[in-house]
Amino acid sequence: MTASDAPLDLVRSQVDRAIREFLDRQRPIFADPHVAVLLAAAEDFLAGGKRLRPAFCHWGWRAAGGGDEPALHTAAASLELLQASALIHDDVMDASDVRRGMPSAHRRFERMHLESGWHGSAKQFGEGTAVLLGNLLLVWSGEMWRTSGLAPEAMAAAQPVHDDMLTELMCGQYLDLLEQARGDSTFDSALRVALFKSGKYSVERPLRLGLVLAARAQPAWIDRLCVQYGQQVGIAFQLRDDILGVFGDPAETGKPAGDDLREGKRTMLIARTLAAASPSQAEAVRDLLGDPALDAEGVQRLRTVIEETGALTACEDMIKRYLDDALHALEQAPIEQSARTALAALAVAATTRRT
Amino acid sequence: MTASDAPLDLVRSQVDRAIREFLDRQRPIFADPHVAVLLAAAEDFLAGGKRLRPAFCHWGWRAAGGGDEPALHTAAASLELLQASALIHDDVMDASDVRRGMPSAHRRFERMHLESGWHGSAKQFGEGTAVLLGNLLLVWSGEMWRTSGLAPEAMAAAQPVHDDMLTELMCGQYLDLLEQARGDSTFDSALRVALFKSGKYSVERPLRLGLVLAARAQPAWIDRLCVQYGQQVGIAFQLRDDILGVFGDPAETGKPAGDDLREGKRTMLIARTLAAASPSQAEAVRDLLGDPALDAEGVQRLRTVIEETGALTACEDMIKRYLDDALHALEQAPIEQSARTALAALAVAATTRRT
Repeated sequence: MTASDAPLDLVRSQVDRAIREFLDRQRPIFADPHVAVLLAAAEDFLAGGKRLRPAFCHWGWRAAGGGDEPALHTAAASLELLQASALIHDDVMDASDVRRGMPSAHRRFERMHLESGWHGSAKQFGEGTAVLLGNLLLVWSGEMWRTSGLAPEAMAAAQPVHDDMLTELMCGQYLDLLEQARGDSTFDSALRVALFKSGKYSVERPLRLGLVLAARAQPAWIDRLCVQYGQQVGIAFQLRDDILGVFGDPAETGKPAGDDLREGKRTMLIARTLAAASPSQAEAVRDLLGDPALDAEGVQRLRTVIEETGALTACEDMIKRYLDDALHALEQAPIEQSARTALAALAVAATTRRT
Repeated sequence: MTASDAPLDLVRSQVDRAIREFLDRQRPIFADPHVAVLLAAAEDFLAGGKRLRPAFCHWGWRAAGGGDEPALHTAAASLELLQASALIHDDVMDASDVRRGMPSAHRRFERMHLESGWHGSAKQFGEGTAVLLGNLLLVWSGEMWRTSGLAPEAMAAAQPVHDDMLTELMCGQYLDLLEQARGDSTFDSALRVALFKSGKYSVERPLRLGLVLAARAQPAWIDRLCVQYGQQVGIAFQLRDDILGVFGDPAETGKPAGDDLREGKRTMLIARTLAAASPSQAEAVRDLLGDPALDAEGVQRLRTVIEETGALTACEDMIKRYLDDALHALEQAPIEQSARTALAALAVAATTRRT
């Protein structure tokens, strides 16, 4: 991200501080050096991350008239712990080795087991510990959210949104596993996954949380902004994610090239590829997609098919259309100008990013 | 359990009702038949369970003067969802096939994948879905706890206990994995695992939650009762669990005979066995403990060693001693007689159970 990073940068230092303070509060429980490794792993993981969800929450709060409020930064930052939990569990489920350019959490603990010469399966130890680390971040995210210090009336208004977000997140991740297993590649199913997995959880819910925390209600304009801006940006965000999962530069994404192809992810990019593929192109997709041993040549072959069928261009066009619609909806919203400018920049940043 | 089941039975129907009501509230989110399987799996899993943790919470509430209060049943019942989450994740981590006499959650979803003839690894799909189901139950447990309807002042007093319980639970489960990996078998390390994994989470914290919810404070007598009764019963509960994991009847425990031996669990029973073992007995333990392919003969050989070294008797004596100390502390507590009687029966039930 470049010029449009400003609304993220403004939030980053506040979020970082809030995370540091929260982890410091947990430190006494981790005095035992045996369990201290869990806290250290959480700290290392949380040092990375784009702070995108906290930024949508922050600018939602501002859009609904919220002022400069440290408690809001804490509440918003809790979304970064939730995202860390989801990624750590995701990597276990997908058997991904690399995250943010570093070994994934289960690989980190697997290596600890191997280097210590311990008993039993290092792989099982790594995965089990990563599940527990993800659980820890999940419950901490809830604790941090609840103890932010925001007014009880604000929390009471936003809590149902937060509760639904968590249930939807687990359902969205399950739908993702399911589509992969079923090998479904319809536009409808791909869009449903994009909306549930990311559209709601990554953009719409964080934005709505910020709006509702400040407004302490959900008037029609908030709901409209959440659906017409939030969900549209969210889907475009996920479509960008899908493209980066195939065409992204590992130096920027922190993940191996073509990782999504190896995992056989059923994205809109794949649905559009198959819809427009010639018999030989369709055969290449069937043969190569989801092959855990897919090499650089296979990745390149699939990339070529995806480009030649026009699927890449079609998805880029979709992103542009969702973004335009979102920006149009943003124009109509009765919010203050600085928040409008920031949310516009954030929408661009979230959907044109390279990382 | 037999005569001393009364304090559990009293709680059971209320807990069952609260769980049913909570799941019904979630149903609209699961209208999509694709995700409905998650709710169905949660319902099936929650139909089982001893309701032990809700019972300790309930009788803690009564002990501190709490009256008949449906909201308390909801708050107490949320602990059963937390336990379901922990068991589902545990079974993934330990690669356990059976739970409560049924296929474990990851096996259930693995079978669904196989029967549907889906793509990719059925094992990976089963494990991933079980992780998500465990996450769902974990976040639902928190939601159910928070939305019980108890007074805000009661919740504010108990929330820090609840937060610490969750962090301790994850740490305790990690310690369990770690001891297994390190092959540690000292009395100290076994006791630390028993206290963290179960002593606190299964007995002391649920009891303290009930007490603090009713008292809205933690006077010295509450802390004393929690430590001298709660932690002692908790450790004895875990020692009983360790014995059932080796000597339990599968028809009663719902788990295969000698499961803990196959998983190589480093319990007090094993620590005491090794401390008293002859060289040939120690060799048998080293050879057989933690062998995933351990057969009935191997299980019998280890059982014999554990009995011949006197470890079984020693652990039974420990349980008796912890129970006696707990009952003595209970006598001293300034609580009403009906709660004292119930907590005494509950302590006996928890530590002499066969399931």
